[in-house]
Order: sequence, then C-alpha cells, then structure tokens
Amino acid sequence: MSDLHVRAKALDAEDELALKRREFVLDDTVYLDGNSLGALPAHVPDRVADVITRQWGRLRIRSWDESGWWTAPERVGDRIAPLVGAAPGQIVVGDSTSVNVFKALVAAVRLARGDGGGGEADAGRDEIIVDATTFPTDGYIAQSAARLTGCRLTPLTPAEVPAALSPRTAAVLLNHADYRTGRLHDLPGLTAAVHAAGALAVWDLCHTAGALPVGLDEHGVDLAVGCTYKYLNGGPGSPAYIYVREELQDRFDSPLPGWNSHAEPFGMRPEFEAAEGALRGRVGTPDILSMLALEAALDVWDGVSVDAVRAKSLALTDFFLRCVEAYVPQGLVESLTPAAHAERGSQVALRCEGAGDVMKRLIERGVVGDFRAPDVLRFGFTPLYVSFVDAERAARVLAEILEP
Amino acid sequence: MSDLHVRAKALDAEDELALKRREFVLDDTVYLDGNSLGALPAHVPDRVADVITRQWGRLRIRSWDESGWWTAPERVGDRIAPLVGAAPGQIVVGDSTSVNVFKALVAAVRLARGDGGGGEADAGRDEIIVDATTFPTDGYIAQSAARLTGCRLTPLTPAEVPAALSPRTAAVLLNHADYRTGRLHDLPGLTAAVHAAGALAVWDLCHTAGALPVGLDEHGVDLAVGCTYKYLNGGPGSPAYIYVREELQDRFDSPLPGWNSHAEPFGMRPEFEAAEGALRGRVGTPDILSMLALEAALDVWDGVSVDAVRAKSLALTDFFLRCVEAYVPQGLVESLTPAAHAERGSQVALRCEGAGDVMKRLIERGVVGDFRAPDVLRFGFTPLYVSFVDAERAARVLAEILEP
Repeated sequence: MSDLHVRAKALDAEDELALKRREFVLDDTVYLDGNSLGALPAHVPDRVADVITRQWGRLRIRSWDESGWWTAPERVGDRIAPLVGAAPGQIVVGDSTSVNVFKALVAAVRLARGDGGGGEADAGRDEIIVDATTFPTDGYIAQSAARLTGCRLTPLTPAEVPAALSPRTAAVLLNHADYRTGRLHDLPGLTAAVHAAGALAVWDLCHTAGALPVGLDEHGVDLAVGCTYKYLNGGPGSPAYIYVREELQDRFDSPLPGWNSHAEPFGMRPEFEAAEGALRGRVGTPDILSMLALEAALDVWDGVSVDAVRAKSLALTDFFLRCVEAYVPQGLVESLTPAAHAERGSQVALRCEGAGDVMKRLIERGVVGDFRAPDVLRFGFTPLYVSFVDAERAARVLAEILEP
Repeated sequence: MSDLHVRAKALDAEDELALKRREFVLDDTVYLDGNSLGALPAHVPDRVADVITRQWGRLRIRSWDESGWWTAPERVGDRIAPLVGAAPGQIVVGDSTSVNVFKALVAAVRLARGDGGGGEADAGRDEIIVDATTFPTDGYIAQSAARLTGCRLTPLTPAEVPAALSPRTAAVLLNHADYRTGRLHDLPGLTAAVHAAGALAVWDLCHTAGALPVGLDEHGVDLAVGCTYKYLNGGPGSPAYIYVREELQDRFDSPLPGWNSHAEPFGMRPEFEAAEGALRGRVGTPDILSMLALEAALDVWDGVSVDAVRAKSLALTDFFLRCVEAYVPQGLVESLTPAAHAERGSQVALRCEGAGDVMKRLIERGVVGDFRAPDVLRFGFTPLYVSFVDAERAARVLAEILEP
C-alpha cells in the first residue's frame, strides 16, 4: 500500500463530511463527473414516486394548491439561496440555464438604460461584454440578447474586462468558474469594476453553486443564473434558477413575461402587470416532476456548511494534484487548473495527449471524469460524496494508463 | 334509473375507446379537468422509477448516450407528431409553452422579413397579430416579441383576422381552441388567409392536441406550439413542444440559440452555427425526468386513432349538453360552447351565476372541472378516459347543486 493511499485513508477518517456519502447512490466507481451530472441522493426515488403516484395520480389538479406545486419555483429558490449567499425572496427556479441567461441579459440591458418601456435603440449604453472563455451557450445567448436589444457584443477574457468597461457598457456576463480549466474568477473584484462603470454584472454559477461560497448578496451581484444538476444533484436537466437582486426587482423587465410572472396569474387579464419580487423571473407553467425531484435532492444540504464544503474541495483537489505529480511521469499531463486556491473551483483539468482515448480507458477502469475537446481531461470533485481514497485511486489509474 | 343514465350505459358499451380507461389511474371521481391536467397513465410511475434509479442512479452520466437522453427532445417530438398531423422531424420537445411561443413568434417575424441577420428595424413587415381571446400568456409573450423585433401588436378575435391582414403583417398567433369557451377556430381557413397576405401562421395547440385532428402538414401551418400536460397526459408542467415546418427549418432563426441547437453541441465552439432541422428549436439541456415521464405517457396512444378520439369527444360533449338541458332548469346555465361540431373543441363551458362557488360544490361532490373568472364552469372531456356515465353524472350533480 502506497504512502499516498495511507494518507488518503487518514484524510477520509478526519473528514467531517464523510458520512454524507451514505446519502447518495454510489458504487465502486470513482465518480468524478459530478460537475456534469451529480449523483443520485438515495431518498429521491421515493419522493418522486409520491409526487407521481399520490400528488399527480390521486390528487390530480388539486395538487397545484394542496401539494404546493404552484409556489414551488420560489420555495425551491429559497432552498438554493443560502448555498449561494442570498437572502430569501431573490431566486426562482425554472427553465434552462440558457433561457435564464437570456432573461438576465435582456433585463440587465434594460436596467442599465433605465428603460421602462420601448425605445431601446436610442439609449446610450449599447454594449454587452461576455466572457470569451465561457461555456458556449452563454455566448450564443448573449449574441441573441445583443441583437434583440441593439447592442454590440464584446467577447473578452475576464482579466480583460476591467480595462474594457466604458460608459457604453450595459451588462457583463461572466462565469464564476471556467468550465474547461476550472479557474475561479474574482467575483467580488469584477462585480465592483462593472458597477464602477455603471453597468450590471450577471454571473453564471453553474460550476460553483454547491461547491464553494458565492456571496451574491455580500458582493452586490445584480443578476445570476445557474443550473442545478451539477453540484446541487438535482438530476439530469433539472430546472435552472435566476437570482434577481432585491433592489432591482421592481425594475426587472423580463423579455419572457409569461403568465406565471403576472401579478394575478389567474385573473387571466389581457394586459400584463408584473408580479412583485423575484416572481418576475418565472415564465410558464413550472415543470413539477423535475422541480420536486430537485427539491428532494436539496435535503442533502441540511446541516452542511458551504465553508466546510469549500475546505474539503480544496483539500481534495490539492491531494489529487499531489497524487498525479507523484504517480504520473513528468511531462505526460499538464494541469490547467490554477494552483492558487483563490483561483481554483472544484475541478481539476489536465491537458493530455489523446485525452479522448485516455478518458475512455479511465471510464473502463472505473474512474469517471469527462473529456472536453481537444485535449482536456476533466475531474470534478464533489465534496459531499467524493473521498480522498477516490482521488488517490483516480490518479493511480491515470498513471497506469499513461505508462502501462 | 333515468333514461339518460340508461342511455349513458349503452353508449359506454358501444365505445371502442372504453378499454383505454383502464390504462389510467382513476377513482370514483368524475374527472373533467383533463383539459388542465391529464390523469396519470398507470405505467408511468414504474418507468420514471427506472429513469431515476437505474439511468440516473447507476449509469449516471453514461445515460446521456446509453439511455437516449440526448436525443429525447426529437424522439419524443416524433411521438407527438402523428397526433397533430405532422411527419417526423418537425417537432422537438422542451421548455414551456410560453418560451416556445417566444421562439416561434420571433422566428416567424424574421422569416416573414426574409431576415437572415440584424437590421430588423428597416424591414417592411412590422405587425404581429395576436388572438385577443387567447390564453393570456400568449398575448404577454407576443407583446414582448413585438417589442424586441420592432413590431406593433394588434389583438383581434380570430374572426376579425382575415380582414385585418395587410402587407405589413409579419406573423399571426392563434389558438386552435379558445381556452375559456372551448370554441374551435378554423385552422385551415385562417392559415390560408394568413399565407395569402404573405405572413406566417403560428398556432397554439394546447387545447386541441390529443383531442382532435390538427393536420399541421396538411394545412400548411408554419409554426406551432403546445403543452403536453392536458390531453397528452404528460404530467404537471411537462415540457412543451415546437413544430417547425420542414420547408422553413433552414431559415428558422431562433432567438434562443442555446448549445443544444448548435450543429456540433460538443464542439464547444465560440461561434454559433445552427443545427439542421427541427433541432434548431432546442435550447438548453433537456429536462430528462419530465421528458421521459411524458415519453412513457405517450404509450397510451399506441393503436389509437385520432379520428376515433374526435368522434368520441363530440359524442361526449353532445351527450353532456343534452343531459344538462334535460336536468338543469332553463336559465340557470348558458353554454358558451358552440353547438356546431366544426366549432367545438373537447370542452364545454357553461356560464353560471356564482360559478366559483358552484365549482367548489361540484368538486366536493366528486365532479372535478374548473372555474375561470368571472363566471365560467369548464368541463373537459378526455376521450381516452371519460365515460358517458361520467358525463351523465356530472350533469345530474350540477342540476342538484343549482336547484337543491
């Protein structure tokens, strides 16, 4: 038994989150793809069965009131809120991340222009800056939002943003962590820079919510979106969320004003009148099965401190990098993930020749990460269920594959 | 036993769809709210349990390929296609009806303008006509689509549309059936009129798909949307769909170009390049639990002819109206639903004093319809599981409540 394996066992023995692993359905696989699809919390199947069999099957239409279906988007939003540093009443769940990026960006441009109605074309602020290293969907949607609001789109790396901000900048869309490299961006500093230029900061939290403290309220973020199927374990394609800062809610002017965001949804009135608060982020009928699966999945967070999650995440990625360095001959892989804790999310990205094939072989040997073209191996570390022994084994199997 | 009750039993005995009822979870309730939330098909809970426990829980990320998650939007779309008269390859499932209305209307305006890129503001067609009697969300979303594309919005009743069409009309959004009165609109005639004016016809099928033949291909409809939780029994808030006519697909320019509508989604390329075909209607990561519940629910349509469904629907609503006329003293209720079959959907709307209170008492007595402000009782007749005995009982209980 190697020294590092012994060390891994010792770290697991000290891990205050170790017992959380039992709340998930896991097997002998080392599952390092929770940054793509979180594992199944063990109690979710029974909860969903109840939603289907009793709430839908027996109560049917009555469940919109009696089972709390109607208010699920804001109720589940309030369950996510403490995980991203938000007070209640600022998050609603629903739609995909892409759709929420669209709502947030168009609304941000309107807010930056002080625009309550039409006439955008004359307004002075006509630029959206988008993180050029972003997950591509954010860039595509930003392009569409720019086109529909008469803005130009400027793709920049996050580091380039502060110098590029100007009185013409309306909104800046940034990823909290780079989906490829795992680099964590400076949310407080970039948000402050955006505000100093009079623009609005929109953050995509897909790769950080549930993995580290975000501090939306504390850092004055204007709008934020995120998915719930990565570190929040909500299930495949579970609904995303949008955060609308309390002070902005009464001027939040959604480009998708569905009946669920109306002040009186069942009034069935021909004129739109926006609801109060974060409800303005709702659109159509909420997707109940997926939303209540997510609500059940969030139970695993009861009693968990995000600071403890962050501490374990950094310890795990540090330890994995140490094992890789010890096991893998020099030059075969190169870490794209910053060594500095302040710049690291909860994944490790290794550049490697033939990465696609290497990942296939890792998966065959029970180590599941994923491949991102052209040459990146991604390993996500979900502190609620990944152990130090997992990290050591992953590095060991990787070394065996690279140098058989 | 009344004559009508005897007649109801005879009609049930002759009903070729009668056995379908056994495929649903039902009880002693007369459930006439399937036009709001369809009943649970009995096999759905086991299918969803498999999706959660095996596909998500055990296969995890591998299910995107191995369990067919990735292709579910188009696969489930092709299951809906024959129910609305569409050849395969023209429907994708995902997002809410409201979001799909937005995609369809903005894309329709762009198609009408022959607009491949920006510069909408100079284009000649600058009007969207919307059904003024529509479910309100369609009107709110149409208002937003108009604002973002520089169009004016003209709300008209469907009957007023032909005379109002002009060379400035870009798109017309119509409901196939009026959600309040149950009136069926003339889809072939109105579509032809819209086309004659050079505009595009967008139809909302929420209240007709699964209840009667729609004939999207046959009648040359350009774009259509619909929900799946009414007559398609997909479950609460199950994902909606969008139909993009084959000839328009290569020019369909979505305002929500998420990564799922990219020609190479996993290429993660910064520039957007639209996929071929109906995939352009996809946006973000599909909502798998809800989508696969819907896919399972669609199994009840195996071997069912939509013509048979329509015949039973008309027989049921005819019979219900006959029972109401026989049981309820004259003047206490007034049918808002057209007597002519060609103008009737699959629901009956009765105007009635104190309708909200009357519906409460109906529900207490086991007859579940719904109330629409200010004075409408709605009764939806789902031919797959509503019987003639149900219809007779509903009318009888209504009479007992109105004249105790």
